[in-house]
Amino acid sequence: MPKLSDVIAVLEEIYPPQWAESWDAVGLVCGDPDAETAKVLFAVDPVQSVVDEAVAWGADLLVTHHPLYLRGTTSVAATGFKGRVVHTLIRNGVALHVAHTNADHAHPGVSDALAEAVGLRVTGPIIPDPTDPTGRRGSGRIGLLEPPITLASFAAKVADGLPATATGVRVSGDPDRLISRVAVAGGSGDSFFAEVRAAGVDAYVTADLRHHPASEATEAAPVALVDAAHWATEWPWLNLADRALTEVATERGWQLETRVSTLVTDPWTAHAPMPYTPPKPHSSTPHSPTPFDPTPAAP
Amino acid sequence: MPKLSDVIAVLEEIYPPQWAESWDAVGLVCGDPDAETAKVLFAVDPVQSVVDEAVAWGADLLVTHHPLYLRGTTSVAATGFKGRVVHTLIRNGVALHVAHTNADHAHPGVSDALAEAVGLRVTGPIIPDPTDPTGRRGSGRIGLLEPPITLASFAAKVADGLPATATGVRVSGDPDRLISRVAVAGGSGDSFFAEVRAAGVDAYVTADLRHHPASEATEAAPVALVDAAHWATEWPWLNLADRALTEVATERGWQLETRVSTLVTDPWTAHAPMPYTPPKPHSSTPHSPTPFDPTPAAP
Amino acid sequence: MPKLSDVIAVLEEIYPPQWAESWDAVGLVCGDPDAETAKVLFAVDPVQSVVDEAVAWGADLLVTHHPLYLRGTTSVAATGFKGRVVHTLIRNGVALHVAHTNADHAHPGVSDALAEAVGLRVTGPIIPDPTDPTGRRGSGRIGLLEPPITLASFAAKVADGLPATATGVRVSGDPDRLISRVAVAGGSGDSFFAEVRAAGVDAYVTADLRHHPASEATEAAPVALVDAAHWATEWPWLNLADRALTEVATERGWQLETRVSTLVTDPWTAHAPMPYTPPKPHSSTPHSPTPFDPTPAAP
Amino acid sequence: MPKLSDVIAVLEEIYPPQWAESWDAVGLVCGDPDAETAKVLFAVDPVQSVVDEAVAWGADLLVTHHPLYLRGTTSVAATGFKGRVVHTLIRNGVALHVAHTNADHAHPGVSDALAEAVGLRVTGPIIPDPTDPTGRRGSGRIGLLEPPITLASFAAKVADGLPATATGVRVSGDPDRLISRVAVAGGSGDSFFAEVRAAGVDAYVTADLRHHPASEATEAAPVALVDAAHWATEWPWLNLADRALTEVATERGWQLETRVSTLVTDPWTAHAPMPYTPPKPHSSTPHSPTPFDPTPAAP
Amino acid sequence: MPKLSDVIAVLEEIYPPQWAESWDAVGLVCGDPDAETAKVLFAVDPVQSVVDEAVAWGADLLVTHHPLYLRGTTSVAATGFKGRVVHTLIRNGVALHVAHTNADHAHPGVSDALAEAVGLRVTGPIIPDPTDPTGRRGSGRIGLLEPPITLASFAAKVADGLPATATGVRVSGDPDRLISRVAVAGGSGDSFFAEVRAAGVDAYVTADLRHHPASEATEAAPVALVDAAHWATEWPWLNLADRALTEVATERGWQLETRVSTLVTDPWTAHAPMPYTPPKPHSSTPHSPTPFDPTPAAP
Amino acid sequence: MPKLSDVIAVLEEIYPPQWAESWDAVGLVCGDPDAETAKVLFAVDPVQSVVDEAVAWGADLLVTHHPLYLRGTTSVAATGFKGRVVHTLIRNGVALHVAHTNADHAHPGVSDALAEAVGLRVTGPIIPDPTDPTGRRGSGRIGLLEPPITLASFAAKVADGLPATATGVRVSGDPDRLISRVAVAGGSGDSFFAEVRAAGVDAYVTADLRHHPASEATEAAPVALVDAAHWATEWPWLNLADRALTEVATERGWQLETRVSTLVTDPWTAHAPMPYTPPKPHSSTPHSPTPFDPTPAAP
Repeated sequence: MPKLSDVIAVLEEIYPPQWAESWDAVGLVCGDPDAETAKVLFAVDPVQSVVDEAVAWGADLLVTHHPLYLRGTTSVAATGFKGRVVHTLIRNGVALHVAHTNADHAHPGVSDALAEAVGLRVTGPIIPDPTDPTGRRGSGRIGLLEPPITLASFAAKVADGLPATATGVRVSGDPDRLISRVAVAGGSGDSFFAEVRAAGVDAYVTADLRHHPASEATEAAPVALVDAAHWATEWPWLNLADRALTEVATERGWQLETRVSTLVTDPWTAHAPMPYTPPKPHSSTPHSPTPFDPTPAAP
Repeated sequence: MPKLSDVIAVLEEIYPPQWAESWDAVGLVCGDPDAETAKVLFAVDPVQSVVDEAVAWGADLLVTHHPLYLRGTTSVAATGFKGRVVHTLIRNGVALHVAHTNADHAHPGVSDALAEAVGLRVTGPIIPDPTDPTGRRGSGRIGLLEPPITLASFAAKVADGLPATATGVRVSGDPDRLISRVAVAGGSGDSFFAEVRAAGVDAYVTADLRHHPASEATEAAPVALVDAAHWATEWPWLNLADRALTEVATERGWQLETRVSTLVTDPWTAHAPMPYTPPKPHSSTPHSPTPFDPTPAAP
Repeated sequence: MPKLSDVIAVLEEIYPPQWAESWDAVGLVCGDPDAETAKVLFAVDPVQSVVDEAVAWGADLLVTHHPLYLRGTTSVAATGFKGRVVHTLIRNGVALHVAHTNADHAHPGVSDALAEAVGLRVTGPIIPDPTDPTGRRGSGRIGLLEPPITLASFAAKVADGLPATATGVRVSGDPDRLISRVAVAGGSGDSFFAEVRAAGVDAYVTADLRHHPASEATEAAPVALVDAAHWATEWPWLNLADRALTEVATERGWQLETRVSTLVTDPWTAHAPMPYTPPKPHSSTPHSPTPFDPTPAAP
Repeated sequence: MPKLSDVIAVLEEIYPPQWAESWDAVGLVCGDPDAETAKVLFAVDPVQSVVDEAVAWGADLLVTHHPLYLRGTTSVAATGFKGRVVHTLIRNGVALHVAHTNADHAHPGVSDALAEAVGLRVTGPIIPDPTDPTGRRGSGRIGLLEPPITLASFAAKVADGLPATATGVRVSGDPDRLISRVAVAGGSGDSFFAEVRAAGVDAYVTADLRHHPASEATEAAPVALVDAAHWATEWPWLNLADRALTEVATERGWQLETRVSTLVTDPWTAHAPMPYTPPKPHSSTPHSPTPFDPTPAAP
Repeated sequence: MPKLSDVIAVLEEIYPPQWAESWDAVGLVCGDPDAETAKVLFAVDPVQSVVDEAVAWGADLLVTHHPLYLRGTTSVAATGFKGRVVHTLIRNGVALHVAHTNADHAHPGVSDALAEAVGLRVTGPIIPDPTDPTGRRGSGRIGLLEPPITLASFAAKVADGLPATATGVRVSGDPDRLISRVAVAGGSGDSFFAEVRAAGVDAYVTADLRHHPASEATEAAPVALVDAAHWATEWPWLNLADRALTEVATERGWQLETRVSTLVTDPWTAHAPMPYTPPKPHSSTPHSPTPFDPTPAAP
Repeated sequence: MPKLSDVIAVLEEIYPPQWAESWDAVGLVCGDPDAETAKVLFAVDPVQSVVDEAVAWGADLLVTHHPLYLRGTTSVAATGFKGRVVHTLIRNGVALHVAHTNADHAHPGVSDALAEAVGLRVTGPIIPDPTDPTGRRGSGRIGLLEPPITLASFAAKVADGLPATATGVRVSGDPDRLISRVAVAGGSGDSFFAEVRAAGVDAYVTADLRHHPASEATEAAPVALVDAAHWATEWPWLNLADRALTEVATERGWQLETRVSTLVTDPWTAHAPMPYTPPKPHSSTPHSPTPFDPTPAAP
């Protein structure tokens, strides 16, 4: 049976820590390098419900995409929810390992899994990693939709391809526009707008877009936006990571049992719709907003 | 007929620039202080469609909540969308004035209008302005829902009370929980979580919440979250500002015509739902997420 | 007739923006890239009198050496003089383009025109641009005076060669010293003293020298200083820029009318002399100052 | 005979070091606190010619307005001109003491002496020191010219009242404007423009104004500018400091001989005039510049 | 039996966290606030041997003076010695609480215990806490030695009063000097030299002095220095903290067993003497160093 | 007879200033480059007793390892001990030159001399200078002890090989451990711990180690520590520098007399031992500390 340090060494070969951003906090968060490791659980978020699942299943190692501590802490006391996670993990002998922006930048990585889930054929990264001579590693991915379909159909395809969350998918743009070339970025994608525009895509699939970046992007260029739950855009990568680890474990003859958590850790648990009338499709300027009927706003 | 400088002086009495945050950029963005001013349009966003509406209506002054330039620029050339806005405004003799965080902090201000729209009786700010002896100015508002209703009902009430947008309202929390005490903050509210928790509220209505702040807030305390479009949470304030200016204009005998724009400048124009099953209401831990059926994620 | 964007493209080929210092703000400040452009005015300062001249002459484009906004602004309201300039320009359809340190560093550039105006044959820059393989681009210029003349004569030659300003030319050094090798830097030149000394010149022609840099330079080495009005040292470049643009316009068959403004925008408009007795030429140390007769200082 | 430390203690009572700006470097630069001190020389600049005068006269202490080292040094080797000054002073037993912005801010201080020299009755500082209950200490001074005279006459009065320097006095503004209320600031005065404008003066007398601050000040408001040599605007203070020290020395019965240096340490030693034609006095806008005849600029 | 949170509340009343320096990291480092707490161990350093002692003794809480993590960490993995400490503590149900500069500043605090151990009567702090109206809290302590004794005798008294460490006590100064007034600072004391000199003491007892601070202090003023092991100067405080907690526990009727660790965690475990000849006591300048015989330095 | 500038040129060839750290302050601190230079004294510290020795011996130049001013000063007044040093030097015509981290990094440099003094054969630097193709320059040195001896014996050898100081040598580690591979760093060595560990040495000889770095180093890895007086670890280099300068002087036919100061400028002048019992050699974990008998700590 492998030791934790053996399994971590394989994970760090697949997702080398030096590929992470300088501000990121990846690698082993807790656990004893000498512990025997037989069961590995993959999840997006190191939250209490996931940790409880790991303990209940008897996991030795939990691999998450999101860091528990992105900024340094001087206390892991169980007076806060992160400290409770640490105490639960250590008391139950479960290690925690994080593969975050190193998994984003890897090939195949988080955005490759997202692209596959929404039906794209990847042609390369949005921002190539300058240290990668193959040009395949980097931030986000550009992909092709073959054959092209309308934005309305593509949004439905995204909603269908990703794990379901309460609030569905948000869309910006002319629903009849044909979408052929698409940029995708798992997780928060508002820092890549300039490169997405420069890439000449028809649509951009990402998450966590706020009003000002989305509004400015829409004013600046007619790129359609498709925004799903942050969790949902990163979940597909878990299977990818699971397969990659399992492949090496099999080669080495390790008895390693793995599992991908299906707990929905998107914080949104319900959606209340509104009676919105979309802009008319024959509108001359596709981005011109629709006036709304302000009567109901009067108290 | 008043000059632009007269109207701006009134607006700056209602929303004094010194009440704005130090990083904000409020006040007159363009326009000639000596221009005669007869028609004033109020809107949330200084985007091209709103500016076109101002020109079409013959406005002399456009008052927006959001700054055109939050960070300084050395160029207003019409090679970008902000420069096109400046050229359209100046060529058509329309001034632009911004009341942003000074309107947020004023009493009554942006969050008072939001509280009224969702049916709350305001009791005070989330973070009082330390320079205000009355204790009524400040960031966000705390309000009471009388009588208390369930989170599911409250979310529907929020969806009903705000102007309709394509993506509706996102909710986090136990749908059966009774909501009585509520915090509201128009626009992006993720910087007030600590104070919202300290205020002991049942729910928090705001906008633009991203995965990490919302997830951490949910892990840290059982406060329900209700997240609407940024634009929709700030739109109710436009009527408030309109009434405040009109009142002074009437006192001074000015022939001032005013109007509140009803263009929906929320960038999202459509919504694609997903087949999400909410967590069971009898769940012992209200925040425990539901597993999803990962079968559709396989391509 | 060319569009504004065509003319700007030519100007940016002659003075590429990437040659500017990182702190500088060059390029198009206002104007519509699609506007037809027939008349171009060149000037040093984007001040109101120059803008009025541009409007009166019917210019479509004003090209200035100095930026209107060196630091970013969030307002172009006509409540200040820079905002009035922007309003005058946009209302009258005059674009503004700035070529500042990119024109300083170009070859031929601002200091080449200055060197020619004061009678020097240029041999190279004071500080070569390390990215220029020809070694001709860079900050300031070194030139030769053939044949050498005394500092007193050279100062008169500088006063004669530059456009006249109210306060004339300030001189530091032994008037009888023979001047052969000269450094020149159009505009404020106090940041180049170390390199000027290292270049082994006899004199340095520049502008805007203040007490401490000039005093320390004089104590550190016996380099004569010749200081003219900032405006006057940069004005000669306007003809250079005009000729360069005109040449391309002619090649492309554009009907482009150009003009160099002769308005003196040096802020100083008068000079009051003082009864100063210069140090005796046979003084053993050429930099020893003359005592003055303090009697008139008694009130 | 007093020791150096006794004399310094008196000077620091007259010009307390804590009144200096935080970036300044005032106080004793070299000298032995126990040395007997009989002769004190006052000067503006601690340059070699002044130090040579101190040695030749047998001074024990040189008091200057300008610091020798404004920024810290780790070497006083005589390989540079400041090190040579230190070696000359220490080898000849001459101490050096600096009273810089503490003397600027004192009452009476540097700008009081300047105001007196140009014929003004001082009414208060430009920027009062907030820690001074009397309101008389602070930066710069505001004064009255009784009776008012034209700018042309006032410029001549300034030229007459200050010690003569080679380059005279520079003037900006309508020569016929009546000048009554005047701001003065000895030395470089370009950081006080906002307060000078707010003070509603007719003219501002200072030194070392460069193109951009002077041009922007002229565009922003019609305040006349009168700019003399930096050295000349500070020299009048030397007599003030001499009298203040002498008064205390007499009280204490010290045999202290004092002297004010009359060496002109303004770096400019000559002036070359230009054939400038001033703007016509009946010009409608007093700040409109005159065009110049560009013919001589052609090489 | 008290819960951990009860015991921590008492410790934070005795040593309030807000008394700590802003750069410090005090408070609970690990542990569950709801855990029952019966046995408390006090020690200076949270190192593995101390943690092993806590586990062996069955401690529920370890209180140390030094933080485990002074700077934030994003990992507590047992791949490093600090992570091993965290894992040992959590697996064995031992909490860790730190009272560092809050215990230094408290009255009585770390330096009070040190002063008592070396035989001083405390008169007040070296640097009073400006927020303490009693003037007793603050950094370091000043104390009196009654009657005065020679430095040689005082050094022996310090060596006798503190727990023994391998390298003994280092002394600087004239051994025959009479010592009456003494400053003490537990732990590294090199940041208090200016205040120590200003306090006019004869000697300063502290730890961790390096060459440059000690050499400069000796050159600047004839204050004798007595430097013990850092651990030894802080150990006496453990008894003080133990007594303070025990007193409250007794009042509340808690069955709390406490213990002070006697493990020597000073890292130095041996000392090799050198054949040094001290400077002669009749030397005219007490700080003049002795020449040494350089012969043995030749290899 | 050479001029000072000639001798400095040779010293800067042996220890080029560009090899110093960016924060360091090396080179000529005072002195006249044209002075004739016949006698050169070498010392570690530029303190008053060393300067007095230089004056008494008639030195023209004092070369020290430590800077007089590491941070810049704006005053060399003799009101402080550094200013008194400057005055003594300049009045007596003694120049001061510093070779600090440039001498540390040179080959042979400060740590080569230290390695030789403690009986090591150097194999290379701890941290090689990346700009040195030979790989011999850099920080610290690694050396071999042939044959290996116990830590107890090695500590005695270090105590014997270095000039004697009052406080001897501090040791951390198992006294019976065999020491073969050793890192050395003259002066404060606490910044090299990571590289020392990576080098796989048995012991590290350096100075000025404080509690926290030494404690953490000991917890992190079983490297023995040997800590001598800072002065003593750098003194051996003086002979090296003397020989290097003398060699060039002889080649050039200069009549240069040189001398190495033997004044002990370590600030510690006495040592008080303590009754410490070392951990038993048969202890299973060599770093486990010994408990001490706390009885004498009771007052």
